[in-house]
Amino acid sequence: MKIAQVAPLWEQVPPPNYGGIELVVSRLTDELVRRGHEVTLFASGDSQTLARLAAIYPRALRLDSDVKEYAVYEMLELSQAYQQAAEFDIIHSHVGIAALALASLVSTPSVHTLHGNFTKDNINVYSHHQKQAYVSISNAQRQINLNYVATVYNGIQLTDYPFIAQPKEPPYLAFLGRFSPEKGPHQAIAIAKQTGWRLKMAGKVDAADSKFFEQEIAPQIDGQQIEYLGEINHTAKAELLGNAAITLFPISWQEPFGLVMIESMATGTPVIAINLGSVPEVIVQGQTGFICQNYEEMAAMIPAALKLNRHTCREHVKNKFSVTQMVDGYEAVYKQIIKNRINLNGYIHAAKVRQ
Amino acid sequence: MKIAQVAPLWEQVPPPNYGGIELVVSRLTDELVRRGHEVTLFASGDSQTLARLAAIYPRALRLDSDVKEYAVYEMLELSQAYQQAAEFDIIHSHVGIAALALASLVSTPSVHTLHGNFTKDNINVYSHHQKQAYVSISNAQRQINLNYVATVYNGIQLTDYPFIAQPKEPPYLAFLGRFSPEKGPHQAIAIAKQTGWRLKMAGKVDAADSKFFEQEIAPQIDGQQIEYLGEINHTAKAELLGNAAITLFPISWQEPFGLVMIESMATGTPVIAINLGSVPEVIVQGQTGFICQNYEEMAAMIPAALKLNRHTCREHVKNKFSVTQMVDGYEAVYKQIIKNRINLNGYIHAAKVRQ
Repeated sequence: MKIAQVAPLWEQVPPPNYGGIELVVSRLTDELVRRGHEVTLFASGDSQTLARLAAIYPRALRLDSDVKEYAVYEMLELSQAYQQAAEFDIIHSHVGIAALALASLVSTPSVHTLHGNFTKDNINVYSHHQKQAYVSISNAQRQINLNYVATVYNGIQLTDYPFIAQPKEPPYLAFLGRFSPEKGPHQAIAIAKQTGWRLKMAGKVDAADSKFFEQEIAPQIDGQQIEYLGEINHTAKAELLGNAAITLFPISWQEPFGLVMIESMATGTPVIAINLGSVPEVIVQGQTGFICQNYEEMAAMIPAALKLNRHTCREHVKNKFSVTQMVDGYEAVYKQIIKNRINLNGYIHAAKVRQ
Repeated sequence: MKIAQVAPLWEQVPPPNYGGIELVVSRLTDELVRRGHEVTLFASGDSQTLARLAAIYPRALRLDSDVKEYAVYEMLELSQAYQQAAEFDIIHSHVGIAALALASLVSTPSVHTLHGNFTKDNINVYSHHQKQAYVSISNAQRQINLNYVATVYNGIQLTDYPFIAQPKEPPYLAFLGRFSPEKGPHQAIAIAKQTGWRLKMAGKVDAADSKFFEQEIAPQIDGQQIEYLGEINHTAKAELLGNAAITLFPISWQEPFGLVMIESMATGTPVIAINLGSVPEVIVQGQTGFICQNYEEMAAMIPAALKLNRHTCREHVKNKFSVTQMVDGYEAVYKQIIKNRINLNGYIHAAKVRQ
């Protein structure tokens, strides 16, 4: 198939440190190329890909302090992708609502992966375009009525996450994620203090969360029991998770997927999480971690989690959240959408599809 | 003709107080209806118009504190307008770059009035879509290479601006506009202080300019020589300008049009301005005001400006910046664009055009 992948421009594909969407797009794109598809990746010019790279800006916008209006470049990227729509059998967008109006004006079908959450504002646009084809990244994410064609879970490459059979001594709990209230870093600290466990934390602090970090997090960091490692790269991330006894996921929002849970399990480390959003779809209760109703329960499950089989955790990721699984899922989605188009109206594009 | 007008959603059409674009769209739309065109106005639901109103949101977004993501609603408005593109002979957009990608995907022609200035970021999108049809609101505005089909100056309705033959006693200078550095309110104060004139100022202070206002403007307001009237409605605006001896326009940026200059001249009050952007196209040097190279020259021209004929000022607006002139300009633009389309490729839309 001739496939366009449209990625956000904020980060490189793949991202050097953080950037869940860009990581997923990278793995998906390269594997599609390996499977023989003709893929064009719309992304920042410093991206690394096996596909044909179509870049409207030379580097990740995050790295360019000259850029004041982010949306402008996203618009330009979408313009280019949709002006070439006739060249593709399908356009796969990862940029959310910005693509919807354009997608509804061309005959090439689009599929939109929902990487984020619905907001009071953006549901108006999604609802208006509810007949577009959507992929949810968890079943829990389907909070409004849209034409969902599948749930395709995010997939990671196991070789990127070395398996660690034995947690490091002295043992510690890990927290990895944005330092925002909904991710619950303050709850992770409370659990550590209550149970006397050491806690190692890493992740970025967005400008919007700087007050929260200063007031709720910084005063608790003592460098002994509670450590903050700052923003760390992929290798350090895999080590932080893999060497941990348990990873905490004390969220207070409807998590759409939660990449850190599968990253942790891939290294062998079980996850204790709050039962919100995607969590029960990602963790196997009592096998790869524990799904809890509140923070007290999270603390109480630590001894049981220490006894879980770390090989089982990794196997679970291999079976359900690998790049292979993810690309199988998307390939099936593309074929189904194109087939439906052919059945419905025999678009001229149909003739171009090579499978 | 069947014409779509696409207005910003921030303000009602027409705006109760400020909103240059919404005012122009309102006058244009209503006059097109009076001339027999079938006009659909895409605007906020609290807009007042003779056209068919197509609203995707019940009120001006400015008035709705629930709205966090403005761009979402603009996108939805554009979706609706362009999904109905086949219903129109022409789509006239007043929302800038957001419409360009969509405009390039439908066969109905669009025309885009440039209401703002180019930025380092947005020129990338304009340049990519340079073959779209653009209307500049001054010749000076044409800073980059685009397919400009005409300059159509903004027009106002003279009945909205009562003529005042004699400035009020004691005489004063007027400043009306956003309190931002590029509009030069601090320079207006300096000119007043240097010459001993009274100065009455009005206009809004955007959040981005609150520091500038507090530091540079507020300390200078004494309620005697230097007065600040806050945000004022249309009637108060027309009185402020009409009762003034002279209006100051001490800008330091490339003004794309400068509605306040024609509003002032309409009431009979001449304008002393800095020679930037549209200024030499709007003021007739030595007839309706003075075009100066610097602030010293502005101060020096006050005595000469007092001798200018106030009837001449109003006549100039009547002849060059009336709603009639503006709508004549846009009608010619619409006809030309549609005619070019017919000549070029005989689009099916051509058959629908009724003139």
